[in-house]
Amino acid sequence: MSIRVGIYGYGNLGRGVECAIKQNKDMELAAVFTRRDPATVSILTDTAKVYHADEAVGMAGQIDVMILCGGSATDLPAQTPALAEHFNVIDSFDTHANIPVHFANVDTAAKKGSHVGIISVGWDPGMFSLNRLYGNAILANGSDYTFWGKGVSQGHSDAIRRVEGVKDAKQYTVPVESALEAVRAGENPELSTRQKHTRECFVVAEEGADLAKIEKEIVEMPNYFADYDTTVNFISEEELKAKHSGIPHGGFVIRSGKTGWEEEHSHVIEYSLKLDSNPEFTSCVLVAYARAAYRLAQEGQTGCRTVFDIAPAYLSAQSGEELRAHML
Amino acid sequence: MSIRVGIYGYGNLGRGVECAIKQNKDMELAAVFTRRDPATVSILTDTAKVYHADEAVGMAGQIDVMILCGGSATDLPAQTPALAEHFNVIDSFDTHANIPVHFANVDTAAKKGSHVGIISVGWDPGMFSLNRLYGNAILANGSDYTFWGKGVSQGHSDAIRRVEGVKDAKQYTVPVESALEAVRAGENPELSTRQKHTRECFVVAEEGADLAKIEKEIVEMPNYFADYDTTVNFISEEELKAKHSGIPHGGFVIRSGKTGWEEEHSHVIEYSLKLDSNPEFTSCVLVAYARAAYRLAQEGQTGCRTVFDIAPAYLSAQSGEELRAHML
Repeated sequence: MSIRVGIYGYGNLGRGVECAIKQNKDMELAAVFTRRDPATVSILTDTAKVYHADEAVGMAGQIDVMILCGGSATDLPAQTPALAEHFNVIDSFDTHANIPVHFANVDTAAKKGSHVGIISVGWDPGMFSLNRLYGNAILANGSDYTFWGKGVSQGHSDAIRRVEGVKDAKQYTVPVESALEAVRAGENPELSTRQKHTRECFVVAEEGADLAKIEKEIVEMPNYFADYDTTVNFISEEELKAKHSGIPHGGFVIRSGKTGWEEEHSHVIEYSLKLDSNPEFTSCVLVAYARAAYRLAQEGQTGCRTVFDIAPAYLSAQSGEELRAHML
Repeated sequence: MSIRVGIYGYGNLGRGVECAIKQNKDMELAAVFTRRDPATVSILTDTAKVYHADEAVGMAGQIDVMILCGGSATDLPAQTPALAEHFNVIDSFDTHANIPVHFANVDTAAKKGSHVGIISVGWDPGMFSLNRLYGNAILANGSDYTFWGKGVSQGHSDAIRRVEGVKDAKQYTVPVESALEAVRAGENPELSTRQKHTRECFVVAEEGADLAKIEKEIVEMPNYFADYDTTVNFISEEELKAKHSGIPHGGFVIRSGKTGWEEEHSHVIEYSLKLDSNPEFTSCVLVAYARAAYRLAQEGQTGCRTVFDIAPAYLSAQSGEELRAHML
């Protein structure tokens, strides 16, 4: 029998989860839940239906794992604990500073409902976190580096769009190649914010807008751009659509360290992602952890987990014997 | 109280484990066991003693985890099951084809003695296996690539040393850069053995030896070199010592795959290692998994495990709270 997955929230991430389920033969999409009018939401999967979010709890017996596809600012802090009482849940909560509180809330709710919740699943937090942990555990004497990009930052793009005279914009976070090279060479550099990433902005201005003023406002914007070397490129709406409509992202987690009695040997561990679609890749990670949540629940486990708590074998559709024979 | 670690076998790997223990404050070296006369083996740690291998079983109460540092050909298949009856054990068994049998033997012995055994720990098998598994689970629709090097292959160096007229030799396995680039670009190439790696040999010939004959014998050697583009460099004994006495290694695990309803997006996950000392890095992985074995045993778990079965959090000296707050 397939693992019956529910999708709660149908934006880029929800659609990505739907696509990922199609690629995993041991899973099926059971239902999509939306806060919009279900009649206005059309999905890709013929065999599944769209329901209003309010109907979810009543369908608890028909869904093995619910994947929450809302935002971290206001959706997930409320939705994940609420649903964890009724379902095994997975979310991609990514407000790093609030993870401990979110973990506690989901843990309480999941235990109350005898379910499993896995939070902060994706690539950062998620696969990048795992690689920080593995790297730290292995090279106890070393330094950590995380670089993001080249990729689209939704938050920075939104910040530019709020500037007066801006019609549309896309912002790319770009790792500084020379910094990456120094880290890879085991030089253990101390890097400032400015030395690690640059920011490239592609901006469509309103007709007649003061371009110099827009540029100045962007590059001097506190928190978002002031601490970075930022380049602003004004382009046409057509060019923005043609060349910058994707949502690529990626990045690098590097752990460098020394071993030997006198710390005479250097080692570099590097993990990198190059993603055409940030939400679709995040979705693939969510779906793999949905399989893990299902299995943990089958074992009778309850409560909140993160990627740190999940043995890798739970993510794979293959058995332990198969994994040892073919992948070890 | 520290985790008391025993080292069973004191070659390059055993010394590496000793160095790694020094860097992990929650661990201490309890004893080193050797099949040689203990009086002839001097170790680096003042606070530990060397015992004969036969004394190990009698010291079971003084050692929390035994790390086996013997070879995979004949040592580990016998030693790991034998010791798993008396200790929690970790080994780096790396004969991929025999892992299922070794797993079954260690599992039976560990369960009999109520201990935990973790086998095939290191980087391949080990961290590379983990990355193959994570990559497969996430990008269900994709291809796997493992490249090794640049690094010293002990087996190939030994094979060259057996050629008549060869005094000493060192062989490097080198990944083909253009193949790596094609994989990274998501081109999904089908690669033959020859297209993935080249072999570089540094050979010290006996005085008066027939160099052309040696070279021909190396490059045509079945299994070891015939399927590769191999270069043979004759150098002096002094140059071999000065430039080729290290044991560097490393490599790349790459998973590339497609997502999207029509498979319209490409993704590349890459994990790479650049290691000055192959045995010291392997040792660091062994020590991190020794921590995991200790904790699993504390929980009352028994039997054989591989890296696939160990939740990452078990590897770190930090608590779950600390990990979630600082590393997620």
